[in-house]
Amino acid sequence: MLAASRRWRAQGLKVGLVPTMGALHAGHRSLIAAARGENDIVVVSIFVNPIQFGPGEDFARYPRDPAHDEDLLGGAGVDAVYRPSVEVMYSPGSSTRVHVSGVADPLEGAARPGHFDGVATVVSKLFVAVEPDRAYFGQKDAQQAAVVRRLARDLDFSVEIRVCPTVREPDGLALSSRNGYLGSDERRAAVSLSSALRLAADAYAAGERRPERLRRMLCGRIEAESLARVEYAEVVDPETFTPPGTLAVLAVRIGKTRLIDNHDLSKVFPG
Amino acid sequence: MLAASRRWRAQGLKVGLVPTMGALHAGHRSLIAAARGENDIVVVSIFVNPIQFGPGEDFARYPRDPAHDEDLLGGAGVDAVYRPSVEVMYSPGSSTRVHVSGVADPLEGAARPGHFDGVATVVSKLFVAVEPDRAYFGQKDAQQAAVVRRLARDLDFSVEIRVCPTVREPDGLALSSRNGYLGSDERRAAVSLSSALRLAADAYAAGERRPERLRRMLCGRIEAESLARVEYAEVVDPETFTPPGTLAVLAVRIGKTRLIDNHDLSKVFPG
Repeated sequence: MLAASRRWRAQGLKVGLVPTMGALHAGHRSLIAAARGENDIVVVSIFVNPIQFGPGEDFARYPRDPAHDEDLLGGAGVDAVYRPSVEVMYSPGSSTRVHVSGVADPLEGAARPGHFDGVATVVSKLFVAVEPDRAYFGQKDAQQAAVVRRLARDLDFSVEIRVCPTVREPDGLALSSRNGYLGSDERRAAVSLSSALRLAADAYAAGERRPERLRRMLCGRIEAESLARVEYAEVVDPETFTPPGTLAVLAVRIGKTRLIDNHDLSKVFPG
Repeated sequence: MLAASRRWRAQGLKVGLVPTMGALHAGHRSLIAAARGENDIVVVSIFVNPIQFGPGEDFARYPRDPAHDEDLLGGAGVDAVYRPSVEVMYSPGSSTRVHVSGVADPLEGAARPGHFDGVATVVSKLFVAVEPDRAYFGQKDAQQAAVVRRLARDLDFSVEIRVCPTVREPDGLALSSRNGYLGSDERRAAVSLSSALRLAADAYAAGERRPERLRRMLCGRIEAESLARVEYAEVVDPETFTPPGTLAVLAVRIGKTRLIDNHDLSKVFPG
């Protein structure tokens, strides 16, 4: 991978990296399209990263569909797919972790211990292996994007971190490879995340600024669904992920499936 | 730094990096000479890395002598000196650390909590900023070299880690920027480290293999000096830094000065 990337660089070409865990959907396609528009070369990495999953999480059943991924990539104008094996990424005896504190501590960091160490480590490895000029992440995983921005600055990576808007289903549900876990009743209940964000954005536009009111509005809408349970609902600063701020962030269990979503309340909710 | 390094690479030149904290001596000169012999371009970094010093340690008084360093570098055939400020390396809000477990845990890792996180973080940053083909470290800091080898592998850095023999004074004392802290009585007592290693290597050559005997021999020789106090003396594996093995490693206090040294007992002690 690095040899190819250095050959491109030697020819003066700019390289955009889209890191993924496969199970590609229209959200990934929008990242690839953004990369395509801004770079000479587009590299997509596909790696279901075991160390970012906790012990009770869905690493084993995380959707893997190489044929589907290849179909999607075939038409997307991708120059290279970097698909390392787990054995190559974490060979026996490997023991190095990249740890980001601060922005990685609350919310997803607190709910999923070790998750962001896993993310920071694998993203650092991808940046070392690909030496991209730009890398593309989705706003859906807003805190992940902030963690990556932090590590890229702190470790001196010469990469521009680009964050692309969340892609949504017609009813508002943010695209996620985990949506496939949802049964049909759960799928209907899952619209509560985006509905809640829209409700809070409308209230914010109408002048509501009290964090407790906004939080209660988010929770109220979600827990109106009997299948949904709020794990957290906060309104935070989009750099630090602590209050005060305007970024509403949600983690919700729908049955056994954990979904996240977010929206900057100072902006109109799309659609 | 990165722009220069990438220009060299584009011309097909190989880059060797010698990371230092300044206060350069003949040990550093031997690293530079090794780099000079194996690469087209030699980069020396000079950075007294605050995060690898513990709270009670000698960061503030660590010797800094830019004029002397420049003199030494002037005659050494160095192509570039990378000398970032603390403010550039650790800008406000920076919060990322590279952590190596396993090899970084015992001995120096146990005696100096946080030390190897600081080393691993700064070395990762240097590797990202310089993208060297080879990097040069001294055998004197044997565990540091093992930690760097581990992180380079684990984070996929395309760099060959070269470890060069310890350079010693005529009486055997390993060169160190900290030797300048020693008063004249302390300087005489400091020879006990290399004397002890020579004694143990002689015993090993004569067939002694019992770790406890070798350890007692090391401690006995050092504590024959009233100014010297053993912090640790172990015989370990040179990859894992745990017993069993043939690498004798020492940390010794001479007055307020902490010195380390090591020798592979299966080899003749030099000089």
